[in-house]
Amino acid sequence: MLVNRRTIRIEWGDCDAAGIVYFPRYIEYFDACTVHLFEAAGFRKPDMLKRFGMAGYPMVELRNRFYIPSTFGEDVVVESTISEFGRTSFKVHHRLLKQDGQLGVEGFETRVWTTHDPEAPGRLKSQPIPDEVKAAFEAG
Amino acid sequence: MLVNRRTIRIEWGDCDAAGIVYFPRYIEYFDACTVHLFEAAGFRKPDMLKRFGMAGYPMVELRNRFYIPSTFGEDVVVESTISEFGRTSFKVHHRLLKQDGQLGVEGFETRVWTTHDPEAPGRLKSQPIPDEVKAAFEAG
Amino acid sequence: MLVNRRTIRIEWGDCDAAGIVYFPRYIEYFDACTVHLFEAAGFRKPDMLKRFGMAGYPMVELRNRFYIPSTFGEDVVVESTISEFGRTSFKVHHRLLKQDGQLGVEGFETRVWTTHDPEAPGRLKSQPIPDEVKAAFEAG
Amino acid sequence: MLVNRRTIRIEWGDCDAAGIVYFPRYIEYFDACTVHLFEAAGFRKPDMLKRFGMAGYPMVELRNRFYIPSTFGEDVVVESTISEFGRTSFKVHHRLLKQDGQLGVEGFETRVWTTHDPEAPGRLKSQPIPDEVKAAFEAG
Repeated sequence: MLVNRRTIRIEWGDCDAAGIVYFPRYIEYFDACTVHLFEAAGFRKPDMLKRFGMAGYPMVELRNRFYIPSTFGEDVVVESTISEFGRTSFKVHHRLLKQDGQLGVEGFETRVWTTHDPEAPGRLKSQPIPDEVKAAFEAG
Repeated sequence: MLVNRRTIRIEWGDCDAAGIVYFPRYIEYFDACTVHLFEAAGFRKPDMLKRFGMAGYPMVELRNRFYIPSTFGEDVVVESTISEFGRTSFKVHHRLLKQDGQLGVEGFETRVWTTHDPEAPGRLKSQPIPDEVKAAFEAG
Repeated sequence: MLVNRRTIRIEWGDCDAAGIVYFPRYIEYFDACTVHLFEAAGFRKPDMLKRFGMAGYPMVELRNRFYIPSTFGEDVVVESTISEFGRTSFKVHHRLLKQDGQLGVEGFETRVWTTHDPEAPGRLKSQPIPDEVKAAFEAG
Repeated sequence: MLVNRRTIRIEWGDCDAAGIVYFPRYIEYFDACTVHLFEAAGFRKPDMLKRFGMAGYPMVELRNRFYIPSTFGEDVVVESTISEFGRTSFKVHHRLLKQDGQLGVEGFETRVWTTHDPEAPGRLKSQPIPDEVKAAFEAG
């Protein structure tokens, strides 16, 4: 399964009064990493929304474990992969690694492939994930 | 001219590694205060967008002065008013006051009344601010 | 066990390009709600950090379920309570309720009571949660 | 004078319900760009804080002009330079350029070189900017 790696600089504004990353920022990093993971598989989010009539892949469940804090000025690496494809949902696994390779934070996302309902404007519905999307990740 | 006052609690996540409010958070506070100012004048933003076919009142120029830092757990008051109505633009003035009444931060926003262009879907254009909007603020 | 309720206005800046709350914002709301929950029990965070020599109560595990999206201008209520006290860790449960009472988002936090290590400046260590803290929540 | 260029990806979470960058995010981008500008001049912020006993370079005045919105998935370039060195303060100029080279947003920061006051723990004071810092930018 395709694994995407991104280096993220921890910025001053990502840290809290304890001098470490304010934990919701990790969750924003991981959300962006999911976008970049799809892009690495050939699916830029803006194009994908148009092409598949998608509304997005909203989060239905999120889990994070925080092992070692990071502080500003650090360059960390996030490794992201899809750990499971269901029919309409999929799971993304993110691992934030510090410069010495230690696992700092782990994220587990469950998201649903969602399109605009053509019969009810303004309403969304879950849809089977297209086979070509699954294939691109499996080939990765 | 109508003045709206809101108490804002400085949250942990609004502060940076120096233990004081990370300055872009003030700008978010003020943006929300503009929404609340319109609401105090009788114009809830979600309703206003629908009623006037507005796309919003995007910022064209922003200025801030930072006098005294604030830290987490403080309750500050933001006083907001429209300092000037132009034909299609308006200026908002925000003053963040600390508990002892001292001026902590000042914000000056210039925004434009913007609607969807009915002749060019997806395009926006500036529009004269409706008289009833001006009147509501002047009466306030 | 003490339950704290807070009304939160969904601000424009909390919403994403799909027009709904960007999910990491919920996690920030909940983090602030934990601070307010302690305050309701008589422990303002700034005072608590000083009094107990605390560094804070960092998150070690976080779980969220997203049921119904919310959009800007909504006033939602978050109910927060401590669902479990361990020796050095505790669990917080947040329920975000929409105006019709439906459950929009749920958050489960596991946090650790952490102090500065007097024998190793700059290092943190977990500590037993003081009995008076537990008692205040149980009385609530 | 040294000019630093950084490419910034506009992320989904940076955009608001109008589908364009929520303007306070530009201000966060620019703040990070100031950090990267100093780093390009040889002064990593974490090292600089230690070496010069600095508390930072807090913002005293901020001005932004917003010309053309950007939307998610865009890669923009921010060019940053110090436009003026005073004795204890300095001005930073940021220009966000869209892919076609058009100016999207401009930022003007006035910041003060600030150190911990050795005679009054917990207090900050402005200090003359070290000559070697000025020289590094002028050589750039």
